[in-house]
Amino acid sequence: MELALELKQVSLIGFGDGTEGASFTGMNPATGQPLEPKFFSARPEDLQRAAALARRAFPTYSNLSGKDKGAFLRRIAAAIEASAPAIIQRAHLETALPEARLQSELARTCNQLRLFAEVVEEGSWVDARIDSADPSRKPLPKPSMGSMHKPLGPVAVFGASNFPLAFSVAGGDTASALAAGNPVIVKAHPAHPGTSALVGQAVRESVQACGLPEGVFSLLFDAGVEVGVELVKHPAIKAVAFTGSFAGGTALMKLAAARREPIPCYSEMGSVNPIFVLPGALKQRGTAVAAGLQTSFTLGGGQMCTKPGLVLVPRQDGTPAFLKELGERVSTTPSQTLLTKAIADRYNSAVKGRISDANVFAEGAKVEDTAAATVQASLFVADYRDLMEHVDLAQEIFGPTTVVVGYHDRSQLLAVAEQLEGHLTATVHADESELADYADLIDILSRKAGRLILNGYPTGVEVSNAMVHGGPFPATSDGRSTSVGTQAIYRFTRLVCYQSFPDAALPDELKSTNPLGIMRMVDGDRTRKPTA
Amino acid sequence: MELALELKQVSLIGFGDGTEGASFTGMNPATGQPLEPKFFSARPEDLQRAAALARRAFPTYSNLSGKDKGAFLRRIAAAIEASAPAIIQRAHLETALPEARLQSELARTCNQLRLFAEVVEEGSWVDARIDSADPSRKPLPKPSMGSMHKPLGPVAVFGASNFPLAFSVAGGDTASALAAGNPVIVKAHPAHPGTSALVGQAVRESVQACGLPEGVFSLLFDAGVEVGVELVKHPAIKAVAFTGSFAGGTALMKLAAARREPIPCYSEMGSVNPIFVLPGALKQRGTAVAAGLQTSFTLGGGQMCTKPGLVLVPRQDGTPAFLKELGERVSTTPSQTLLTKAIADRYNSAVKGRISDANVFAEGAKVEDTAAATVQASLFVADYRDLMEHVDLAQEIFGPTTVVVGYHDRSQLLAVAEQLEGHLTATVHADESELADYADLIDILSRKAGRLILNGYPTGVEVSNAMVHGGPFPATSDGRSTSVGTQAIYRFTRLVCYQSFPDAALPDELKSTNPLGIMRMVDGDRTRKPTA
Repeated sequence: MELALELKQVSLIGFGDGTEGASFTGMNPATGQPLEPKFFSARPEDLQRAAALARRAFPTYSNLSGKDKGAFLRRIAAAIEASAPAIIQRAHLETALPEARLQSELARTCNQLRLFAEVVEEGSWVDARIDSADPSRKPLPKPSMGSMHKPLGPVAVFGASNFPLAFSVAGGDTASALAAGNPVIVKAHPAHPGTSALVGQAVRESVQACGLPEGVFSLLFDAGVEVGVELVKHPAIKAVAFTGSFAGGTALMKLAAARREPIPCYSEMGSVNPIFVLPGALKQRGTAVAAGLQTSFTLGGGQMCTKPGLVLVPRQDGTPAFLKELGERVSTTPSQTLLTKAIADRYNSAVKGRISDANVFAEGAKVEDTAAATVQASLFVADYRDLMEHVDLAQEIFGPTTVVVGYHDRSQLLAVAEQLEGHLTATVHADESELADYADLIDILSRKAGRLILNGYPTGVEVSNAMVHGGPFPATSDGRSTSVGTQAIYRFTRLVCYQSFPDAALPDELKSTNPLGIMRMVDGDRTRKPTA
Repeated sequence: MELALELKQVSLIGFGDGTEGASFTGMNPATGQPLEPKFFSARPEDLQRAAALARRAFPTYSNLSGKDKGAFLRRIAAAIEASAPAIIQRAHLETALPEARLQSELARTCNQLRLFAEVVEEGSWVDARIDSADPSRKPLPKPSMGSMHKPLGPVAVFGASNFPLAFSVAGGDTASALAAGNPVIVKAHPAHPGTSALVGQAVRESVQACGLPEGVFSLLFDAGVEVGVELVKHPAIKAVAFTGSFAGGTALMKLAAARREPIPCYSEMGSVNPIFVLPGALKQRGTAVAAGLQTSFTLGGGQMCTKPGLVLVPRQDGTPAFLKELGERVSTTPSQTLLTKAIADRYNSAVKGRISDANVFAEGAKVEDTAAATVQASLFVADYRDLMEHVDLAQEIFGPTTVVVGYHDRSQLLAVAEQLEGHLTATVHADESELADYADLIDILSRKAGRLILNGYPTGVEVSNAMVHGGPFPATSDGRSTSVGTQAIYRFTRLVCYQSFPDAALPDELKSTNPLGIMRMVDGDRTRKPTA
């Protein structure tokens, strides 16, 4: 496939173009200069049209076979790959993320689309359950019943700034919502409008190429928040997915809950991703942990949802060597350009605030004012008592910084774990022999985070069946779910049961012959066999 | 087992008793007289103690094996059965529901507890998923990962008035929350405090008999709403389950969403449960449908969540006979005593309002004022145009009444279906030969209701694997879920993933040897085999 995608400057409303509302531009964070061309915010009528088209497309799209949905998702992946050089070039200009990183993010985005294609092509994901009839049951006959997951309805997706591809226009939220059978309306992140436009064109072209109804996909631009607010409030929208700040995520939660018909809002927000280093691990491989930690917290400019921002280390013989190694690595970390000047300013201001805290030792924390969004990695070192007295030490700072906190004994370690709020991840570095002694720590952490990592680092999120990228509030709005991996599809489904229907009137997934050959639960047992 | 349960007059706070706040009594709806003894509302300190105990019990209870949780649920069922005569006698006095109905509701409640015992004893419900490591993967090695459902935390359950056993203290919400591994704090419905006390004692006795920690279960009394409000706002509570009115359900939704840490609120609220009679069905068996309909909408005094309150029938040759049959059955329906005088008053007032509507023909709608909560079944007949012009005709009236609406053609039928809001159920009566012609109707209804019924009646809710007792708002707060059947357990769980953990530090469900022999997803395939 060859695709020469047009850099659309207006919203994509179904197969048509949006109007020219207020204009804005992307900015090059490496220079502080605006990027050509201008883009135009959606007007209310654009949103109305996108919503009406999505509502109209839903009945057809929701009934598409898994095979056809799979072909559509694969087509999107191919269309993105066919324009990869243009997309990566633009994304690099708009985000300052290195091209190699964007290459791998693009590959990840396409793999993610193809993984969801596999899931819906195979078909068992609907968790079809069949309870057979028993006409002779007393006192009342038992009817036949079949249940399955069905799509919720049009989904609003908010692109994230920190993953311009994998958590944006055709990222995990869009892929999982489309896979479930829902039309998607994306609100593009204003920091990468050109990247959004190119990927949006790839999705729209795929809708058309697959002969799907207009409205399965639309893309809205807005430099401000009005379009997003109206999108979440629109009655046609049945769920919201967002990755970004706590302020933004909770604002959307409130809007979703305040609607006449409240809808689920999946906000993936901040997370400090604590790391607990146990005595044996520090003793055996302290410098290796220091090296891995520096790589993890500075990866992508520290702008990862899973960046470790709090590290508990025991105070023991090897601690000074660990801190020295880490300090040296941090002070020699090259400066990095963050996604936007605003993010860099917030980072510098937060780091300044932390430097001025007398109880905290700062390493490499230099703050310079430039037009570019360039910042220096920083490391803070504090004591258990400081952490307990200054809870803001455990607050997330978005960017390449972390806080190392020394603990004196096991009870302090457990006290820190017990005080944690919800996080996306929690990591333990342990010698295998000490794991049993710290089973209580792992048990506490299993109630605080969506993913527990042993002897690794939280950055690097697999897209697979067992991945959980979620966690209790305030890490996400809904700690029951995951926004990455195949289980992300269940955010956008509802259960429907058919009672006493003959095969001819049932969805294929529930027919007695099991024509799709999917795994089902029949009278309590998992099987691919037809029902008796 | 023999149990002589004490009729406690105060809240049950863990293994202890609550204080004596403001007193109230149950009322006998058949006489309008108060019932002995007095009960005492919980005071704030009772709630604080129940919440603190639940929080403390959670770590232990959440790690209980499926076998032990199963034994506990079976013990509760046995304890309830051992006191069945006392419970049924008291429930009859407090609710005026016939003893035969209460017998079957008690059996259903115990079967439900045992069904959840089976689910957790078998163990596959946690949906364990394992992705194997691949150390040789390029560019980065793939870590091992295992995910599963884990309990959310203490759950607040609000007992319903209309099912004093099956949707109350030890009903479906409590059974599924306990099965998932969560402590439960029940707010007893003030209309049946004695029944709640007896069942609550059976649960508490089971906690003790099974050696479980204090706080796995508490029961709070309150004549008003304060205790319930404070319960939902309490930080220890991690989810809410409610069955009752739209006003009550949406009030709890708002409270749950407004917390510092918002939590899921599962409110099962009103539903009109529309029935669509197609021409062939009316022609072939109109009088049988009339008979079934009368039985269904007057069952339990019409106080079922699934009572059919709107029936679409075609205007054709057989329609007068259908209406005549239905009218005769309604006018000879014996008067019924509703659950409370307040419910009877609201019913009579709503029926009066509908009688005064000039466009509606009323059958059997007699309204009498008595001290008892006794009412007459009523039937209203209207035309398609009336329904479109007076949407309140499609509003639920709790009690033994329904509205039959005549439609002239297929387009009117589809227009009614398209205009529906969310319902628990939608029913179609059809001749099998006309089903294919009405596939669009069924498709529309599948987006409006949690359960579709063919040629049956919505009352009668199986407790099984495929049951869906849910539906889009305003039928419930969360149309993704079900409050009846084994899938109800997933309302009270969250996903947790373990990355790179050795077997010894993993929950049994995720160990490579699969010691529990559960069905798992290993590298995408469902299997009970150990991992390689």
